[in-house]
Amino acid sequence: MKLRLGMIGGGEGAFIGAVHRIAARIDDEYELVCGAFSSDPEKSKRNGAALGLSASRVYNSYKELIQTEKQLPEDVRVQVISIVTPNHVHFEPTKMALENGFHVILDKPMTFSLAEAKELEKTVKSCGKLFCLTHTYTGYPMVKEARQIVKSGKLGKIRKIYVEYPQGWLNEFLEGGDNKQAEWRTDPHRSGIAGCMGDIGTHAFNLSEYVTGLHVTEVCADINIFVEGRKLDDDGAVLLKYNNGASGVLTASQIAAGEENNVKIRVYGEKGGLEWQQDIANTLLIKWADKPAEIHRTGAGYVSSFASHNSRTPGGHPEGYLEAFANLYRNFALTIKAGMEGKVASPEELDFPGIEDGVRGMAFIENVIASGKSDIKWIKFEI
Amino acid sequence: MKLRLGMIGGGEGAFIGAVHRIAARIDDEYELVCGAFSSDPEKSKRNGAALGLSASRVYNSYKELIQTEKQLPEDVRVQVISIVTPNHVHFEPTKMALENGFHVILDKPMTFSLAEAKELEKTVKSCGKLFCLTHTYTGYPMVKEARQIVKSGKLGKIRKIYVEYPQGWLNEFLEGGDNKQAEWRTDPHRSGIAGCMGDIGTHAFNLSEYVTGLHVTEVCADINIFVEGRKLDDDGAVLLKYNNGASGVLTASQIAAGEENNVKIRVYGEKGGLEWQQDIANTLLIKWADKPAEIHRTGAGYVSSFASHNSRTPGGHPEGYLEAFANLYRNFALTIKAGMEGKVASPEELDFPGIEDGVRGMAFIENVIASGKSDIKWIKFEI
Amino acid sequence: MKLRLGMIGGGEGAFIGAVHRIAARIDDEYELVCGAFSSDPEKSKRNGAALGLSASRVYNSYKELIQTEKQLPEDVRVQVISIVTPNHVHFEPTKMALENGFHVILDKPMTFSLAEAKELEKTVKSCGKLFCLTHTYTGYPMVKEARQIVKSGKLGKIRKIYVEYPQGWLNEFLEGGDNKQAEWRTDPHRSGIAGCMGDIGTHAFNLSEYVTGLHVTEVCADINIFVEGRKLDDDGAVLLKYNNGASGVLTASQIAAGEENNVKIRVYGEKGGLEWQQDIANTLLIKWADKPAEIHRTGAGYVSSFASHNSRTPGGHPEGYLEAFANLYRNFALTIKAGMEGKVASPEELDFPGIEDGVRGMAFIENVIASGKSDIKWIKFEI
Amino acid sequence: MKLRLGMIGGGEGAFIGAVHRIAARIDDEYELVCGAFSSDPEKSKRNGAALGLSASRVYNSYKELIQTEKQLPEDVRVQVISIVTPNHVHFEPTKMALENGFHVILDKPMTFSLAEAKELEKTVKSCGKLFCLTHTYTGYPMVKEARQIVKSGKLGKIRKIYVEYPQGWLNEFLEGGDNKQAEWRTDPHRSGIAGCMGDIGTHAFNLSEYVTGLHVTEVCADINIFVEGRKLDDDGAVLLKYNNGASGVLTASQIAAGEENNVKIRVYGEKGGLEWQQDIANTLLIKWADKPAEIHRTGAGYVSSFASHNSRTPGGHPEGYLEAFANLYRNFALTIKAGMEGKVASPEELDFPGIEDGVRGMAFIENVIASGKSDIKWIKFEI
Repeated sequence: MKLRLGMIGGGEGAFIGAVHRIAARIDDEYELVCGAFSSDPEKSKRNGAALGLSASRVYNSYKELIQTEKQLPEDVRVQVISIVTPNHVHFEPTKMALENGFHVILDKPMTFSLAEAKELEKTVKSCGKLFCLTHTYTGYPMVKEARQIVKSGKLGKIRKIYVEYPQGWLNEFLEGGDNKQAEWRTDPHRSGIAGCMGDIGTHAFNLSEYVTGLHVTEVCADINIFVEGRKLDDDGAVLLKYNNGASGVLTASQIAAGEENNVKIRVYGEKGGLEWQQDIANTLLIKWADKPAEIHRTGAGYVSSFASHNSRTPGGHPEGYLEAFANLYRNFALTIKAGMEGKVASPEELDFPGIEDGVRGMAFIENVIASGKSDIKWIKFEI
Repeated sequence: MKLRLGMIGGGEGAFIGAVHRIAARIDDEYELVCGAFSSDPEKSKRNGAALGLSASRVYNSYKELIQTEKQLPEDVRVQVISIVTPNHVHFEPTKMALENGFHVILDKPMTFSLAEAKELEKTVKSCGKLFCLTHTYTGYPMVKEARQIVKSGKLGKIRKIYVEYPQGWLNEFLEGGDNKQAEWRTDPHRSGIAGCMGDIGTHAFNLSEYVTGLHVTEVCADINIFVEGRKLDDDGAVLLKYNNGASGVLTASQIAAGEENNVKIRVYGEKGGLEWQQDIANTLLIKWADKPAEIHRTGAGYVSSFASHNSRTPGGHPEGYLEAFANLYRNFALTIKAGMEGKVASPEELDFPGIEDGVRGMAFIENVIASGKSDIKWIKFEI
Repeated sequence: MKLRLGMIGGGEGAFIGAVHRIAARIDDEYELVCGAFSSDPEKSKRNGAALGLSASRVYNSYKELIQTEKQLPEDVRVQVISIVTPNHVHFEPTKMALENGFHVILDKPMTFSLAEAKELEKTVKSCGKLFCLTHTYTGYPMVKEARQIVKSGKLGKIRKIYVEYPQGWLNEFLEGGDNKQAEWRTDPHRSGIAGCMGDIGTHAFNLSEYVTGLHVTEVCADINIFVEGRKLDDDGAVLLKYNNGASGVLTASQIAAGEENNVKIRVYGEKGGLEWQQDIANTLLIKWADKPAEIHRTGAGYVSSFASHNSRTPGGHPEGYLEAFANLYRNFALTIKAGMEGKVASPEELDFPGIEDGVRGMAFIENVIASGKSDIKWIKFEI
Repeated sequence: MKLRLGMIGGGEGAFIGAVHRIAARIDDEYELVCGAFSSDPEKSKRNGAALGLSASRVYNSYKELIQTEKQLPEDVRVQVISIVTPNHVHFEPTKMALENGFHVILDKPMTFSLAEAKELEKTVKSCGKLFCLTHTYTGYPMVKEARQIVKSGKLGKIRKIYVEYPQGWLNEFLEGGDNKQAEWRTDPHRSGIAGCMGDIGTHAFNLSEYVTGLHVTEVCADINIFVEGRKLDDDGAVLLKYNNGASGVLTASQIAAGEENNVKIRVYGEKGGLEWQQDIANTLLIKWADKPAEIHRTGAGYVSSFASHNSRTPGGHPEGYLEAFANLYRNFALTIKAGMEGKVASPEELDFPGIEDGVRGMAFIENVIASGKSDIKWIKFEI
């Protein structure tokens, strides 16, 4: 049985919409049944047709989608809605979808502001529907393995965390041309108060909390705009304190010319450390103070149930970004289905990012942007 | 419009069946409509149900599938059949499917013997249907880029080719236990005359001919069985001569304990060389005699149309084995659709492995196994 | 003609003394003729004998060495003195040696305090003798190449600098046992006000200024002691501003359990970036915004005169830490000899770290330790 | 106490002479006292002067050197002679030096022919002097570690060996120009019957036997000349059988355009494998069939006495080619000194390549060149 999926946003020219659809297809847990792909009705229609949807289920707006689908027979109407619009169109459709009885998968960062995020949290907690936020990197099997190894205590108490997210694609004033991606991501009216820190800094932040199981408690940020004319930050670095006394350094840049997207995390405990980076995603390095470092690999017999649950092929058949994304979709579907069958989802199935990640991500944005403007060194991580 | 896909083989416990289905889904060009998943009717039924097929389109045998589907209305019946059975059940269903009007995607090695392969070649050439052989590694964008770079002449005339395929999973007598994969792959009645050389040696051979555009003309093979009790080769090395005078070395092993599946190719011309390996699949190294080596990357702006056509994400979002597999399915679908629309498929769409690769692959098996038993050093590569 | 070399410190159990001696030997520019290896006369004598020195030239103190050697005939007496004592015994012997007519090679960090450093600067500028500070990492050919590439302008204006120096060897309270290295490096009476920041942070700082040709103007530091009972910092991170508007992040840790000594720098300009790390010391990655990254290699024909001057073998014969160290000794010797011959040393020969690096390094220590204790975010880099 | 070293060959323009001298200096076990650097007396004199030798100890020929030095007082005359001439001038000076009471360090390949090698073996066995052959790669700490790990049995019985030595520097007809290195190495009158196979193939062969402790028993070789006009092989591949039933593949090429000198070995036993390559010389990968691969590192606390004896710095301070070379010189010196003191050298000190390696290396050359010309597949490895 496939879950019936709808999509808001993600029309032509949107990179992430296509990624969501592939992610939804890979494990065959969803069937796309409807969509409102663009605020331009013509475009939406064209996109729907290209995706093989019946014209009657292609809508001109998210409101129309939600309202109309709600009226359809229970065994026909959409069950899960993916929302892949720019940040300023996250909150309202998500809230409306949840309140009208639909599960929601939402792209990050969760909302336009922390205030919206906290409001949404109330909705999620009260609506009885499930919510997934696509922090893709936590979907990688070896990231899940990293979390399990930290949790096992083998590395000892965690002391130091380095997380970095270097990109170079905004090294020039692309938003001055016709690059749609650059345009909305650097526009305060659509992205919110942060550019780089919202777009990729939140991924790095989430990754560090996910892997370590710790929470950031204080930040000290250096936030920069390097490209002339740009309105939002395109680079930043944040010193971090975590709730167990660990310290961290987070860097995110979109002007690191020549870098692609190699998000990387290193975590050190009293006895050893670990290292993962997206460019060699199927490898997790475990480093020991007193014995040889180990190369842990996706698909190997020795990995945890959390890693093996999230891979599809034997060791040595590399899985990548789309499979990591698919893992979010798959676990969300398995959790929904467990609920529909009156079962309790397994810990492996329940392991997808949700509303708390979203609220903390928005708090990250507001705290680091505030810190960037402040003369005070450490500011409390407030939510 | 999706192509209607059927599957022969690929039931429970079959690694490659699931891979084919994911590959078919990723780009949404196919819809699975029927299958004969197992020679055990109960199993086949169970598998079909698990895949959401209507019971009426789940068959007990490939013959039943082909015969029954042929009777269905044109706009209902299957259009493309994937055949993912063990080698000894490749030839007959493929021939029958083609002769009854279906396009076929077939797992490698193509047939049980070279004689079958040559027979099948006639069918393919005369039947008017299309045929794709899943030499997965040629589906990687950076492998396609490698071929284009050789073709461009930038490396000069090709002189030397190293291709290797090291695995370690058969380092023990797994076929003595309940490992289905090991069992049929080491059984001469199901695999044919070769084990390792058929299973992975053919991939390496195909990769070398694909990347260089050259043909092997002579071979000298060392073929080994290392694990006691094993009936087919689990290791081998082949010295190669190519039709332009280049020389090559091909190694394939399934007893390289600790190795996963890191197929790798290096090609050297008069002016430079290239290197690609599956473990870092999104990177193609280009090495020059007199200037710095270059790191070419999937998704970059500078890659050829053949590479960009076969990737889905911007640089730095790693694509892997499943996407490479999906590229075969996608290009095959695009070529079929072009034909249905009376168009000529583009060179990029037409770039998938076919019957000639299959015949040469079977010739490779027969020639290297013959060479392995011969006291003569070089034997002609005969087809 | 070899320069006559003396050594102060560097007796039994001192890691760095042996390194200096190997560095001095590699290129045959020096002959060790005298030493005061330990404040314990017995030990000093034993060390001198083991090194093949005549007993008459093994001294009980640096004072005795300097005073006695000064009395020897000009063609016998030492010409260059290497000082490899702990930090608190840097200033006085260096000053005395310089004032008595000897060239000096001094281990980093230069002095115990910035005040001493500034005092020493006066001496160096007035004494007419040459001074070299062993910031080893600037001796690597590919680090020199990195500097030349930045200087050439090919990367455009520099915007971002990441420099990191992770070690794990002080993850436990080693100074509580009999580890001499750990003992003095964590002792405020011998190391000065900084531990990790002085020992390795200064290397990272120096590397960043050397490669970019920029100067740090502001710092914001997070300075930590993780191991209980420890008296000096064992970890830290520093946000940096440079004099051209670039921003940087420097991390140094001695509690990154499982890390060895893999100092690494990444620099990004408007058009591209570069990356070097000690673990793959003979490679310099040059990354471009719009074309393939390049792998520049020690010993290649295309490298600058600064890189080729500092390597001894053709490409592919890896040179390492000892050769980088030797490059400092060799360039210092060549500069001294040029002076003795009334010639002007070449830019390549003059390219070794000196007094300005030392003063800035000590200022780095004092500024980051002050910043670590301050509630103000940015503090000016004051000297 | 330093051993008095003399050198035959290694004058201006000779790459390897300078390497030998650095290797001899690094550990301070030798003092260069005399030399016959060139057959041209002027050159020899000039070289000697540049090296700081007294004119009376710079000779016009190896004969003069040996005869004259022999007459000098015992505490003055040379003790060890390094012979770094082209291959055709190996046998006679070595034999003469040994017979006249000098220890000899000789560059590889050992002689011009196998007949000479066997003759030299008799001399070495009867003369009472020690002999070292500079198979550099066996001097690397991690190569020694590899040997110890194989020896320990942890990998199980060895089944498969891949050893490769790719270079690209002879991709053009350099010997037609003024490249001295290319000239003699491609000249049958100076190199012997092999080019590539003698120059680097012997290194690969020696490395495989050293690491595994096995002996090659049969070979099947493909020997090629790719560059027009060249007189000796510039490329080759050899299938190998070893005396325990293992099989191997050796490749060596000097026309692999873009490759430097990255000699690499992989060995697989029943339970696991190992991998070492010169470009990351301080790392030894140990791969296991059923647990994570391990990264063993030079200078780590867990390595064997053979590895730690052959490194000078703590982990993370990379040692390279010159240090590997120095290890041969140092172990040879320690063994000589042990003998002079009536002691038995330790197994670690005795671990340097000698006459047996040399004879087997020459047999390798003659066997593979014979095989390359033969129509028979396997030929016995005859000595």
